[in-house]
Amino acid sequence: MKHPFFDNKGPFDLNDIITLIKSTKTNLDHFVSINDIKDLVSADVNCITFFHSKKYKELASNTKAKFCITTESLKKDLPDTCNPLIVDNVLIAIAKITEKFYPNSVIDSFDQETKNINETSYKDKVIYGKNVLLGQNVKIGNNCYIGHNSIIEKNVHIGNNCSIGSNSIIRNTVIKNNVNILDNCVIGKKGFGFFPNNSKNISYPHIGIVIINENSEIGCGATIDRGSMSNTIIGKNTFLDNQIHIAHNVKIGDNSIIAGQVGIAGSTIIGNNVKIGGQAGISGHLKIGDNVEIAGGSGVIKSITDNSKVMGYPAKNIREFLRDNK
Amino acid sequence: MKHPFFDNKGPFDLNDIITLIKSTKTNLDHFVSINDIKDLVSADVNCITFFHSKKYKELASNTKAKFCITTESLKKDLPDTCNPLIVDNVLIAIAKITEKFYPNSVIDSFDQETKNINETSYKDKVIYGKNVLLGQNVKIGNNCYIGHNSIIEKNVHIGNNCSIGSNSIIRNTVIKNNVNILDNCVIGKKGFGFFPNNSKNISYPHIGIVIINENSEIGCGATIDRGSMSNTIIGKNTFLDNQIHIAHNVKIGDNSIIAGQVGIAGSTIIGNNVKIGGQAGISGHLKIGDNVEIAGGSGVIKSITDNSKVMGYPAKNIREFLRDNK
Amino acid sequence: MKHPFFDNKGPFDLNDIITLIKSTKTNLDHFVSINDIKDLVSADVNCITFFHSKKYKELASNTKAKFCITTESLKKDLPDTCNPLIVDNVLIAIAKITEKFYPNSVIDSFDQETKNINETSYKDKVIYGKNVLLGQNVKIGNNCYIGHNSIIEKNVHIGNNCSIGSNSIIRNTVIKNNVNILDNCVIGKKGFGFFPNNSKNISYPHIGIVIINENSEIGCGATIDRGSMSNTIIGKNTFLDNQIHIAHNVKIGDNSIIAGQVGIAGSTIIGNNVKIGGQAGISGHLKIGDNVEIAGGSGVIKSITDNSKVMGYPAKNIREFLRDNK
Repeated sequence: MKHPFFDNKGPFDLNDIITLIKSTKTNLDHFVSINDIKDLVSADVNCITFFHSKKYKELASNTKAKFCITTESLKKDLPDTCNPLIVDNVLIAIAKITEKFYPNSVIDSFDQETKNINETSYKDKVIYGKNVLLGQNVKIGNNCYIGHNSIIEKNVHIGNNCSIGSNSIIRNTVIKNNVNILDNCVIGKKGFGFFPNNSKNISYPHIGIVIINENSEIGCGATIDRGSMSNTIIGKNTFLDNQIHIAHNVKIGDNSIIAGQVGIAGSTIIGNNVKIGGQAGISGHLKIGDNVEIAGGSGVIKSITDNSKVMGYPAKNIREFLRDNK
Repeated sequence: MKHPFFDNKGPFDLNDIITLIKSTKTNLDHFVSINDIKDLVSADVNCITFFHSKKYKELASNTKAKFCITTESLKKDLPDTCNPLIVDNVLIAIAKITEKFYPNSVIDSFDQETKNINETSYKDKVIYGKNVLLGQNVKIGNNCYIGHNSIIEKNVHIGNNCSIGSNSIIRNTVIKNNVNILDNCVIGKKGFGFFPNNSKNISYPHIGIVIINENSEIGCGATIDRGSMSNTIIGKNTFLDNQIHIAHNVKIGDNSIIAGQVGIAGSTIIGNNVKIGGQAGISGHLKIGDNVEIAGGSGVIKSITDNSKVMGYPAKNIREFLRDNK
Repeated sequence: MKHPFFDNKGPFDLNDIITLIKSTKTNLDHFVSINDIKDLVSADVNCITFFHSKKYKELASNTKAKFCITTESLKKDLPDTCNPLIVDNVLIAIAKITEKFYPNSVIDSFDQETKNINETSYKDKVIYGKNVLLGQNVKIGNNCYIGHNSIIEKNVHIGNNCSIGSNSIIRNTVIKNNVNILDNCVIGKKGFGFFPNNSKNISYPHIGIVIINENSEIGCGATIDRGSMSNTIIGKNTFLDNQIHIAHNVKIGDNSIIAGQVGIAGSTIIGNNVKIGGQAGISGHLKIGDNVEIAGGSGVIKSITDNSKVMGYPAKNIREFLRDNK
């Protein structure tokens, strides 16, 4: 499938990839066409995939990919149908290959091909303010509002009955029906992911997008970063207050309520019906269950099971916290 | 009195209101004209009011309103001159009636009738940047500055000697003399108030405004939400640093100093000469006394009496906190 | 040396300065020309300097300035070549003198002399979006991008290979090569420094600038304030995530990584290779050593030595914190 936002420059010859990542695998004597780079589950036989942590052992054993970037110690868990390409650092290798397939996913400069909406076919379909800019191939549904100075970059999809505030910037994003995005938001920029490197960090490509589902609301000044290899997702009927930061790859469920100035670090997954109080912070790579309540100001550094109420830093059971802090 | 920002679509027949809120009150056989919905104190004999918590018992017993939305258990505290309209959920009933009187207070899409300031009578009176937009009926005093790309929506009042930065959005707000509002602020949008409801939350109408008093300064990136039934107020000579979030109905006194990234949740009242350190958070519905000092990073979850110095999360006496955390 | 951003209105007669600050020093019977106000180290024989805390005793004893504003108790540490001008409050005296030399450093209204970039000589040199404004005497290197609606105010320098996002405002700033500044930033406004004063605070002049060194990246929604008497500095290859606030006079070293929503209060100095987790806050006037790691959500209220890892509020050794908070 064609990527909706980033052009795939492939296919590439596997030998070129082996050379790029300096894999110990010796070059093949014939051309093998690789169409894309995908995770263990999504990769088909013509993709290259990657396996960098034993957490994904089960998924690795079932991958359909014919080639997988991995390490000497992990390769034993791959199926016989999958050939390991051994490297020292799997993540850096993925970054290099992803950049090769999707060179535009590394840089994040502004969309140079926007037009004022009044020069586009949407001029009679959308209710819009002054100085609204649309990129190429933007799709906007019926009964939508876009406020002054907002910028909708190329390929963004906006559903029906949506309202975008003023001074907001939206890129690499799919917005479903009945969504409100308020003022001064920046949605869909690349995440804060890179490889620290003395004197010049190496950017991590971000080919994930942002998906905002039906009936949700995003408050003023939000930053919602797009994912690296997966998408950043806001569930249905989930409301975000002002000045919230949602990092790359975060997935938030339905019917959740997140108060002002909350920050959620990369790759954390949040369930349905979750309530998060103002200024709470949630570390990366955690799983927050359904119906969880996190008190304002808490700092969550461990995953939380369904139906828990937590408070404090580090966050713990709310009754315990209040008892210990009388 | 005419509401300065939201058109009152009333009066309405009381029977229509009874039907709307599904009150157990049987319909009257004659037309009773209701002019407005107001709180227990402001309501006059032609208004409908509401009484939803025993905290307001004293105020309820003195209301002048002829009709009051309340519950079976609270109605006994109303005076004989006031007829109770019994409902299951007073707040939802208020929301419905407020929306009926003020339908524009629920939606918050951008002001569609702004003009570039150079097409208005202010073009020779104000010192302004490029692409400055003014709504209808905006009033601006003498010696004012408005930076590039800022949007002053309809009916906003700005006093004398005020400076508005660039990229700021101001709506539903009254700004007194000698006020500085810096760049990238969003002032006067509706608060984060709604009734959680599976699959589609119900918005709470916000007919309060924002009032910023003389000599105050609002830092870059501030969000100050307007009130629901009362106003959000910033006192005189009160200075806010960058990236501060002030929720709906908050009232801050005079001569207060609030450092960067502080968040104050809804309906909290803050006294005069209060100092709040950076990143502190204050929960909703609290009362912070005069001359209080709150250390940076604190999380305040209880009201604080005058002249206290607090620190920590939950915030407690600062000496106690520092002693316990040596 | 001519100040690159603020016009020096001097020289002034020392007698005018003595009168302005109400020093107890009796007026001189002859004209003494004072060229500038500088700190103890930078001041030459024609400058006035200031000495307000015994912390700077060593520096004071070596100053080359002929005149120094100080207090009765500190004056004994000045060398014989330096004449003390005694005042009650040194900082207020400095503010008054700085404002006399640099009146434009107190006010921060928008740059009124910007032009659309397409009316300037940069129209064929820079890749730019719609509605980009440049002030007078802006300098921009080769291969730079400036996004829609961004404002680069007068005298700002931008190096080669830089990318400025959309809706950003940059003033009083020098940006070196290969720097990325993302969307919605405000860089170079005056810091949150003033003298609290009942009914009308007194602004502190800010004649420092912001310097962002090579290869750095500033995330969306950042606010980086310029310094008062010294500069605010971001080191080389230092990356800031979204919604970060850097207060006036802060200096951050090279190769540091600062996650989302962090706040650093005024005059704090941060070393090289420092990692700061999301939402951490650092108090003012601290020194954070090289290779320090500060966990997300921490509140740092004391200086930290090189190579430390800290967590908590107040932040302490991370192992100790985790042991105490099992």
